[in-house]
Amino acid sequence: MQKIQQTQKIQCGVIGLGRIGKLHVENIVRFVPGLEIKAIADLQVDMNWASQFNIPVITTNPTVLINDPSIQAVIIATPVDSHLEYIYAVAEQRKHIFCEKPLARDQAEIQSIIDIVQKNGIKCQVGFNRRFDPQFAKAAALLHAKEMGKPYLLRITSRDPGLPALSYLQSSGGMFNDMTIHDFDMARFLIQDEVESIFACGGAYVDPAVAQCNDIDTAVIQLKFKSGVLGVIENCRHAAYGYDQRVEILCEKGNIQVENTRPTSVTVRNASGQTADKPHHFFLERYQQSYIEEFKAFYQSIIDDRPVEVSAVDALPPFWMAACAQQSLLNQRVVSLPSA
Amino acid sequence: MQKIQQTQKIQCGVIGLGRIGKLHVENIVRFVPGLEIKAIADLQVDMNWASQFNIPVITTNPTVLINDPSIQAVIIATPVDSHLEYIYAVAEQRKHIFCEKPLARDQAEIQSIIDIVQKNGIKCQVGFNRRFDPQFAKAAALLHAKEMGKPYLLRITSRDPGLPALSYLQSSGGMFNDMTIHDFDMARFLIQDEVESIFACGGAYVDPAVAQCNDIDTAVIQLKFKSGVLGVIENCRHAAYGYDQRVEILCEKGNIQVENTRPTSVTVRNASGQTADKPHHFFLERYQQSYIEEFKAFYQSIIDDRPVEVSAVDALPPFWMAACAQQSLLNQRVVSLPSA
Amino acid sequence: MQKIQQTQKIQCGVIGLGRIGKLHVENIVRFVPGLEIKAIADLQVDMNWASQFNIPVITTNPTVLINDPSIQAVIIATPVDSHLEYIYAVAEQRKHIFCEKPLARDQAEIQSIIDIVQKNGIKCQVGFNRRFDPQFAKAAALLHAKEMGKPYLLRITSRDPGLPALSYLQSSGGMFNDMTIHDFDMARFLIQDEVESIFACGGAYVDPAVAQCNDIDTAVIQLKFKSGVLGVIENCRHAAYGYDQRVEILCEKGNIQVENTRPTSVTVRNASGQTADKPHHFFLERYQQSYIEEFKAFYQSIIDDRPVEVSAVDALPPFWMAACAQQSLLNQRVVSLPSA
Amino acid sequence: MQKIQQTQKIQCGVIGLGRIGKLHVENIVRFVPGLEIKAIADLQVDMNWASQFNIPVITTNPTVLINDPSIQAVIIATPVDSHLEYIYAVAEQRKHIFCEKPLARDQAEIQSIIDIVQKNGIKCQVGFNRRFDPQFAKAAALLHAKEMGKPYLLRITSRDPGLPALSYLQSSGGMFNDMTIHDFDMARFLIQDEVESIFACGGAYVDPAVAQCNDIDTAVIQLKFKSGVLGVIENCRHAAYGYDQRVEILCEKGNIQVENTRPTSVTVRNASGQTADKPHHFFLERYQQSYIEEFKAFYQSIIDDRPVEVSAVDALPPFWMAACAQQSLLNQRVVSLPSA
Repeated sequence: MQKIQQTQKIQCGVIGLGRIGKLHVENIVRFVPGLEIKAIADLQVDMNWASQFNIPVITTNPTVLINDPSIQAVIIATPVDSHLEYIYAVAEQRKHIFCEKPLARDQAEIQSIIDIVQKNGIKCQVGFNRRFDPQFAKAAALLHAKEMGKPYLLRITSRDPGLPALSYLQSSGGMFNDMTIHDFDMARFLIQDEVESIFACGGAYVDPAVAQCNDIDTAVIQLKFKSGVLGVIENCRHAAYGYDQRVEILCEKGNIQVENTRPTSVTVRNASGQTADKPHHFFLERYQQSYIEEFKAFYQSIIDDRPVEVSAVDALPPFWMAACAQQSLLNQRVVSLPSA
Repeated sequence: MQKIQQTQKIQCGVIGLGRIGKLHVENIVRFVPGLEIKAIADLQVDMNWASQFNIPVITTNPTVLINDPSIQAVIIATPVDSHLEYIYAVAEQRKHIFCEKPLARDQAEIQSIIDIVQKNGIKCQVGFNRRFDPQFAKAAALLHAKEMGKPYLLRITSRDPGLPALSYLQSSGGMFNDMTIHDFDMARFLIQDEVESIFACGGAYVDPAVAQCNDIDTAVIQLKFKSGVLGVIENCRHAAYGYDQRVEILCEKGNIQVENTRPTSVTVRNASGQTADKPHHFFLERYQQSYIEEFKAFYQSIIDDRPVEVSAVDALPPFWMAACAQQSLLNQRVVSLPSA
Repeated sequence: MQKIQQTQKIQCGVIGLGRIGKLHVENIVRFVPGLEIKAIADLQVDMNWASQFNIPVITTNPTVLINDPSIQAVIIATPVDSHLEYIYAVAEQRKHIFCEKPLARDQAEIQSIIDIVQKNGIKCQVGFNRRFDPQFAKAAALLHAKEMGKPYLLRITSRDPGLPALSYLQSSGGMFNDMTIHDFDMARFLIQDEVESIFACGGAYVDPAVAQCNDIDTAVIQLKFKSGVLGVIENCRHAAYGYDQRVEILCEKGNIQVENTRPTSVTVRNASGQTADKPHHFFLERYQQSYIEEFKAFYQSIIDDRPVEVSAVDALPPFWMAACAQQSLLNQRVVSLPSA
Repeated sequence: MQKIQQTQKIQCGVIGLGRIGKLHVENIVRFVPGLEIKAIADLQVDMNWASQFNIPVITTNPTVLINDPSIQAVIIATPVDSHLEYIYAVAEQRKHIFCEKPLARDQAEIQSIIDIVQKNGIKCQVGFNRRFDPQFAKAAALLHAKEMGKPYLLRITSRDPGLPALSYLQSSGGMFNDMTIHDFDMARFLIQDEVESIFACGGAYVDPAVAQCNDIDTAVIQLKFKSGVLGVIENCRHAAYGYDQRVEILCEKGNIQVENTRPTSVTVRNASGQTADKPHHFFLERYQQSYIEEFKAFYQSIIDDRPVEVSAVDALPPFWMAACAQQSLLNQRVVSLPSA
């Protein structure tokens, strides 16, 4: 693998141009000058959209960019069932990888990816973007600086503004895999420890149709970390007041709290009380900055030749946690995580 | 039992003049004109304190006031081990009772009290004062008005500012009985339903000496109500930033949130950021108004001859909940509540 | 004048039992154990109300309590036109005085009071209660501790919830004398300096009938202190969202801000936004604590034999300020205060 | 002037590539797809910076782009003394203009610009970006929707985080022209009325060196609008706690308040209190979005062929207001604005 100089731009290819793939292209072009989009690949490229970026290679064939020797890093934003195949192909070319979450369909696939990445000495960052959100990043920095002393209890409140289409739910892999997976990653990121056991409770409270998809829409998931720290995740697919994304960490010396962000700071007061904006609508608005920051970090990891901040290895524990939460929910008992 | 007229004052006796008994006397004298303190009894009455209230009878013998035919209601604020005996004696005189929590030492005692109260047709209000806190009362009113739709998930954050003396812990009956009992009552009050099962997790995080008292200082307690509503209680004996008493109820149509109250509304901004008061120091400051409101409600229940808002019957479920939480903590499994 | 011992109670008489006189009696009885109400006087005493306090002397003749040698302090809460006469009579008996604001009808009267008080070596506290509000007292303490550096600019926002009756306005002495007078006192209290010049602008915005009373209902009053500090007072008789009482002081090293207090800390979030309580309704709710604290301070000043915190001397500058503001409003020019 | 089609991109030239000119180029390239930067001109173009945007024409000679027939709009971001000349040249070519504030050096120049713009039937938007800030835009929309009833009183708090270099102050034209000018525009924008008279008070409080530049650093400026609405602007060049940009409008039916925005929503609570971020550092952070929105609006005005939201005509009143404030400050009296 060719050595990349500090001053060099990193040439990138992007595979998959759905909503999130397009967002990555836009963010990189606008805000990450160190990354240069050399090629994009999708079965159906929206040429009207693509034309605004002056991207040299636009192709329907991912192999073109995977094999292009001038490309040094590949961003994979395709559906999960193609991740393994692309990662293998890219890794063989010894290019760096940024892959959307979920990284793979099962534990075996994740393990294969971990192995191939390690074998080829490349970097592979997983798209757990929330770690790069300025709010959570600040909370993490405060916590990890240890000025608040030992953490006792972590609470993550994570509620979507509304149920997705039932058709989406049917193929989502279940709420724990689809939605809570981000909170599982956030819990590990904040506490910097692995979860030992999980207890989950929940049901289809918002819409009974969710139960007919064999899924739930509301849950409380209790975590116990190896260090003893307690964790609680509160999930609901329906928060009528907007996307609710909060974190609170009770520590020896105090409390760190991340509140929701809101579109404006305008308050109206009248005879009925005082009214202000509800939280940002959904993840694209709420986590806008994190989608930029994750690529700045990806770039910096390559340039400095140090480990990425969220690697393939980090994809395994949330995967286990989702499985254990599912088992706990079904059997109504505490489930221990497999030892790493 | 003599019929009490709307315009009549209710003559009261108070047994037990520790910190909370004194507080009750002061609040009644100052703020509850319908109740008149006719007599107080304690083994050692602080006469300096008592002299300011012009109370006709001050005695070391509770029987004096229990048997005084002019006294219509008795407030019991003695240690828990004497509650049953006094309640029996007062009930036989067919006087109304206000008794501090915990009402009794065990389930059998509580049941006896429920029976004797019912048999004598008297009122017996238990000192779960937090139901009368203006913050929580407003949240309850909003929730019970059903304008927010069905509740999905209740969270109670309840953290003390600091560990009590270890000597206190040794005779406290354990954190669930001593501290969480208020939160168990609050959960039932808000959701207006009984809890079906409990899962509790926790430990001695603040001080290992707590473990040596066979107790814990930090816990997360998950509740499942019969109606399916989920509940989470977060407890800690040590919140360095003050007494943390919050409630949040996620409902079909939105969210009801009770934030902490603070001594002042002053904010200072300087080069380091913006700083404001931490929450009120502890329960006497935070729940000041509730200690007045509970006696206004007690008075009104007697005058209107309708059931008290927290009766002896309400003492049983929190007692069970504490026992089940304890069992869950020890056995690391979900514990079902006995059917009422 | 007899020397009062630290442990002694101070025997008080109260003249005038309108709304504010009654409030003082209630607060003293409940919360200021050092002051004992020995006698109350009013032309028409509400005996139903009075009977709850066990006050030895209830009279229609103020002279009875003014001449009672066992009474050491007299609280005057009658209409302003009787203040001078009562203060003279009380001062001659060398008793201490607490007198409601406004202290007197004109400058000559205030000066007479200052003189008689000084001559007799008694204490005379004026009822500028807001200085004793815990919010403003904290802001003042922070400012006077000089940790924020020099003050540059003071803003007082002071808005009533609604217009008083026009009949009240006709005899109120004008908005500056009736309403702004408190803000003038607050400005002096916070900045600890005298105002040099005033510019006022305003009108009858809320109701044209106010103009027919030769009064205004809305104003902005600009102050320049001798030290150069700038001040702005914003007044309005009609804040549809409740009683608005805020203060902000911009200093060299930052900002001190007193926000409104609100009845509860409950927030409701739904599809329309987040809603919380408006501020407290009016002065009795907002300044409740200050009416207690001012008597604790009065007591302490007597016991410690040190100057009262707001003396008759403090009544003069707000009086001048109101007059200058009125003149500025009429002539649309800056008006300089007379030199003290 | 050629008619521009809805689907057409508008070709732009930019003259002046200082900090704000560069920002405009970056924002247009990233966020305003309807505007296409065809050419940029500056005496010294930072080619390293420019190379990232694929701009066809990069020149040191503004005339090149002014005369380029394919360019339809010109953005002028040069120092104020060249504005008139460039605007004349561009207007003669019948191209639309976006010009940074201040539009010109004196009233005569502004009037010339108004005339030439009108004569040539072009659009000329002035860079009063704050009107496009989402916070203030929302407040304006609420106010203009008239649901809050008539406005009574407007307050603008506008404080910079720190003194600029004295060398800057010497050529700034004075605080009213350099800093308050934005607040004057905001006042007109919000109240949708002209100011009738002004009273200003202030001085060099932050640093006596400011006085030696014949300037002030702190002021309170009182406005009276023709409709009678009262206004107060509070300015200071030094807010130790960050850039303070707030607005509050008291109306018949309530209050509209724009609070500061802050980098994160993280709160830390410990034994000392609760601490949160101070406001955004300065205008580039605080008004980031407004710099994008003003060009979206400029584009839309051209496409829809309707008046720009802030035209050359809007440059005149703030200019007068600054002059009157200056005069008021010097003469310590109210100054009336010239009739428009």
